[in-house]
Amino acid sequence: MKRIAIQGIIGSFHDMAAHLYFEGEQIQLVCCATFEEVFEHMKQDPTMIGMTAIENTIAGSLLHNYELLRSSGATVVGEYKLHISHCICCLPDDSWDTITEVHSHPVALMQCRQFLAQHPNIKNVEGEDTAGSAKDIKEHQHHGWAAICSAEAAKLYGLKILEDHIEDNKHNFTRFLVTCQPQKADFLRPLEKANKASLVFSLPHEEGSLSQVLSILSFYKINLTKIQSLPVIGHEWEYLFYVDVTYNSLTRYRQAVDAIMPLTKELTVLGEYREN
Amino acid sequence: MKRIAIQGIIGSFHDMAAHLYFEGEQIQLVCCATFEEVFEHMKQDPTMIGMTAIENTIAGSLLHNYELLRSSGATVVGEYKLHISHCICCLPDDSWDTITEVHSHPVALMQCRQFLAQHPNIKNVEGEDTAGSAKDIKEHQHHGWAAICSAEAAKLYGLKILEDHIEDNKHNFTRFLVTCQPQKADFLRPLEKANKASLVFSLPHEEGSLSQVLSILSFYKINLTKIQSLPVIGHEWEYLFYVDVTYNSLTRYRQAVDAIMPLTKELTVLGEYREN
Repeated sequence: MKRIAIQGIIGSFHDMAAHLYFEGEQIQLVCCATFEEVFEHMKQDPTMIGMTAIENTIAGSLLHNYELLRSSGATVVGEYKLHISHCICCLPDDSWDTITEVHSHPVALMQCRQFLAQHPNIKNVEGEDTAGSAKDIKEHQHHGWAAICSAEAAKLYGLKILEDHIEDNKHNFTRFLVTCQPQKADFLRPLEKANKASLVFSLPHEEGSLSQVLSILSFYKINLTKIQSLPVIGHEWEYLFYVDVTYNSLTRYRQAVDAIMPLTKELTVLGEYREN
Repeated sequence: MKRIAIQGIIGSFHDMAAHLYFEGEQIQLVCCATFEEVFEHMKQDPTMIGMTAIENTIAGSLLHNYELLRSSGATVVGEYKLHISHCICCLPDDSWDTITEVHSHPVALMQCRQFLAQHPNIKNVEGEDTAGSAKDIKEHQHHGWAAICSAEAAKLYGLKILEDHIEDNKHNFTRFLVTCQPQKADFLRPLEKANKASLVFSLPHEEGSLSQVLSILSFYKINLTKIQSLPVIGHEWEYLFYVDVTYNSLTRYRQAVDAIMPLTKELTVLGEYREN
């Protein structure tokens, strides 16, 4: 039985992503309050697998999770892209007329901003988790409160759905990374099946330095699927680049990494995995 | 007198950025509830200038504002990088013992997450604005509520600062863009003083397509200061790239844009301006 540390509780999007990624396998969730806790579990227990949201088509990259991943030493062994749809739900005897507060994760509140703008009198309150907000309403019988979460979570916690699919943009996907300690990576994904890698490196603020690195990747027929530059905090003139690449040949990919190494600083392979 | 549309109210970080950018000039703020409203003002009134946060060293890019800028037809004529420091404040007769809720903009709440985690019993409530949360507490005499905002805003609205500099990361900068209708751009920044440009283009999901574009920029001695890829919503295999470049020669820069044009789709120059 695989044990998967997630941020959030049963019914959260992390739970859904974990069950869909490991479909057909026996898994046990270890629910954590924070992403720090997820990485802490992996550090303490080499058999623990982590499932972590890393970017969303609307909200963009979760920079904090990139930083946790980079500093944790954990490695990426898989990814899962989950379609995100939100509902607004409340206790069965509440209704639109009685709701005064809506609770959810800040990102979920943001993703329903246009919808919530139609209800300016309802206070938007940040919670740690989408499903957690639903559970809290049920457990403490919070009359007058609504939660934003998946319809699955609303049903799980016995809440009434006031309206489903309330996200502003229907093309709302979150990408999750499956991570573990490096020594366990081979058990979770055969390296020969991997065709995607996540890299991070820094570059001096010199003309053309990124173009050189990307040209080399291109010469080796390595394809870029994502790039994000971030200033290195405390080093005004240095940039950190998070790059996702796909490849057909593991050998060619490894050669390409070797070839760009001397042109970069602190190049780290965050993981090699199968594209979802 | 210049009129500047900002998101937020007097005392907000947008207000601070506008006054610092236009230091020594007479300006009049037009306070808007949303970024949409800022761009709508510019559309309706060709003399209106907009001031819009576009990225933050901790929270990352404000993707929604990039999209508003791209679709509005407004042009960027300047930038300002503001150091962001938050305080937590309340009515003078409140104290840590009596505070049950803290109100602020979601990004400000996020930037003080570690600090707020030390006070788990205080409910985090999203407001539209940092200074707006302070003003609201003062005007409605909300006992038991605290706001997160700049120390300037706390003083402006007569609140007591419980603790200053509560942001988790002291290297917290927000970059603001100054925008207007294209026909007014020359009045706001002489083009010969500009040395930076913001571009957006899409590329087919083909091996090396980005590397070709960046190589050409490098051949023309155009320097990249930021790059961010985003999936084009509804077109799974196309990517949108937001790129900031700096240059020494306007002619060389213009030639470089002409040279990459045929390799890109929907290349738009979002503006040319002086680097801050």
